[in-house]
Amino acid sequence: MLEKEINQQPEIIKQLIEREEKNVVQLADTLRGQFDYVVIAARGTSDNAARYAKYIFGAHNQLSVALATPSLFTLYDRPPSLKRALVMGISQSGQSPDIVSVIKEGRQNGRPTIAITNDASSHLAQAAEYVMPLHAGPEKAVAATKTYTSSLASLALFSAALAEDSSRLDQLKQLPGVLQETLDGLQPVMGRVERYRYMTDCAVIGRGYNFATAFEIALKVKELTQVVAEPYSSADFLHGPIAMVRTGFPVMVIAPSGAVFEDMRDLVLKVNKLGAEILMISDNQDLLDMAEIAFPLPPKLPEWLTPIPSVLPGQLMSMTLARVKGLDPDSPKGLKKVTETW
Amino acid sequence: MLEKEINQQPEIIKQLIEREEKNVVQLADTLRGQFDYVVIAARGTSDNAARYAKYIFGAHNQLSVALATPSLFTLYDRPPSLKRALVMGISQSGQSPDIVSVIKEGRQNGRPTIAITNDASSHLAQAAEYVMPLHAGPEKAVAATKTYTSSLASLALFSAALAEDSSRLDQLKQLPGVLQETLDGLQPVMGRVERYRYMTDCAVIGRGYNFATAFEIALKVKELTQVVAEPYSSADFLHGPIAMVRTGFPVMVIAPSGAVFEDMRDLVLKVNKLGAEILMISDNQDLLDMAEIAFPLPPKLPEWLTPIPSVLPGQLMSMTLARVKGLDPDSPKGLKKVTETW
Repeated sequence: MLEKEINQQPEIIKQLIEREEKNVVQLADTLRGQFDYVVIAARGTSDNAARYAKYIFGAHNQLSVALATPSLFTLYDRPPSLKRALVMGISQSGQSPDIVSVIKEGRQNGRPTIAITNDASSHLAQAAEYVMPLHAGPEKAVAATKTYTSSLASLALFSAALAEDSSRLDQLKQLPGVLQETLDGLQPVMGRVERYRYMTDCAVIGRGYNFATAFEIALKVKELTQVVAEPYSSADFLHGPIAMVRTGFPVMVIAPSGAVFEDMRDLVLKVNKLGAEILMISDNQDLLDMAEIAFPLPPKLPEWLTPIPSVLPGQLMSMTLARVKGLDPDSPKGLKKVTETW
Repeated sequence: MLEKEINQQPEIIKQLIEREEKNVVQLADTLRGQFDYVVIAARGTSDNAARYAKYIFGAHNQLSVALATPSLFTLYDRPPSLKRALVMGISQSGQSPDIVSVIKEGRQNGRPTIAITNDASSHLAQAAEYVMPLHAGPEKAVAATKTYTSSLASLALFSAALAEDSSRLDQLKQLPGVLQETLDGLQPVMGRVERYRYMTDCAVIGRGYNFATAFEIALKVKELTQVVAEPYSSADFLHGPIAMVRTGFPVMVIAPSGAVFEDMRDLVLKVNKLGAEILMISDNQDLLDMAEIAFPLPPKLPEWLTPIPSVLPGQLMSMTLARVKGLDPDSPKGLKKVTETW
């Protein structure tokens, strides 16, 4: 199931853009100017999509984004004011009561609310004024893959529409091809994943747009392989956690070309000197050559869209490592598809 | 050095409140009504103080809080709008260029800006319109301890002053006594830390106000002991990472009495069933009795202030474990006191 869903991603993103472009442009026209910042409520994989939103809404729409603190809306019953906010909830199932609570609070306060969900009849979709459906089809594997990349594409679509930026809308349409090319390029590398059969822990590092990618890859590794994987921005990593790097410590790095590339390269040189083992996701051959394992990315995409192909190596590697370890990648021990939290 | 600085905390918090109460009340009076939400820029330990601010500003001042994305201000040069925001920078050294950039942008846009720093002559202090000094004295150990708890106390003071809540200002004054009592109560437990000599990884879990505590304890563990320690809210942990819990997996839990206590207890029962080894920070005897190692908290404090004593067991345990492992707790390998990131 998981493998099939990973491989569906190019087609699903294609369909999503075709089916939603008009709706989202219209929604953006309706909401433009009605808010000064954005509050997003999400958990797990969807929370990582929200991290991506922080960067694209900030860079392309000049909007500050606050990730909601759902417990203030539920357990504490002391919701912060949502004055002048656009309130978004992201959840593939649309079921988690804490996420629904944030949207309900926004709606009761007369704020614009958007649900991004794969289930257009879910509680979340019903609670929100507007719905952006993911059109990803049923996701049966417990670990989310295609709903993650379609959430990113949805957010990218909304951001480009809100900015009335037709060149970015065109860039989005390159995605399905680039995703297919990425998947094809990764196949030959997967045989080497066996090397990590006895890995116990690792760090995953990205920055800027790909801060989200670091979080999502670390989450896939934890969900599927029982390895402790910690996500960081390169800047946060230097403020303390770099102290745990020892000889052979595995560090996965997401470093596509772009504004943060030099910063990422500096970090790679630093951890390399400390004896770390590098797993590299990049389109830059110099950086790929420095790594023990190189996951190549196609070089064509503008940086703001790289998080969508960049997560694929993490998805495939986690699935492959689960199999190498004799674990079930479709249905990891201890997890359910829908997690309800308050 | 580190041990001395940990033990100074009750006295430093006492002095901070005495010296700053009036100034902060005045600052709050000046700023009240001038903003709709708060943007905070910080890294490392100070970023964990910012996490605490999200909860107290939300619960007691009805303010949404966005943690800034410094790379948008520096590497990308695409800062989001700070319209209607109060902009805060937290940094013990006041040196990191990325944090200074966010404050500068706020000031250039005519927004109110506050620097919370231990160095009132630092770049950060100079850049901001207002300064809340930490008065923590020189912090010589590389791992921040007293500047963390004094940052939390500063934020708590500002929150209470902004809400014009004199009962909360009174509650703050209980802190020095409670911190001393906490430190005294922890001494007898530290002999048992030797048990974790060969621990390679662990999870640290808190929720609500103590979400910040989980992050800060995990950071101390990583900085001082080279153990991979991952912080979570109990809700986020259930959305995936719980899959990595195996027999004997160490889980440190921060669960003082309060609104999220039942939620934390449910989590403890779940991970206990999966065979995790529990290290418990709580004032609740039932929960302490369920743990392999019990770090007791004095029972007197209102929940919103518990993050200040709750971090002490993590500081002391990390220092003790560093010694047990033959590491230098004052100056961990690979770290400098001031980390400058862009």
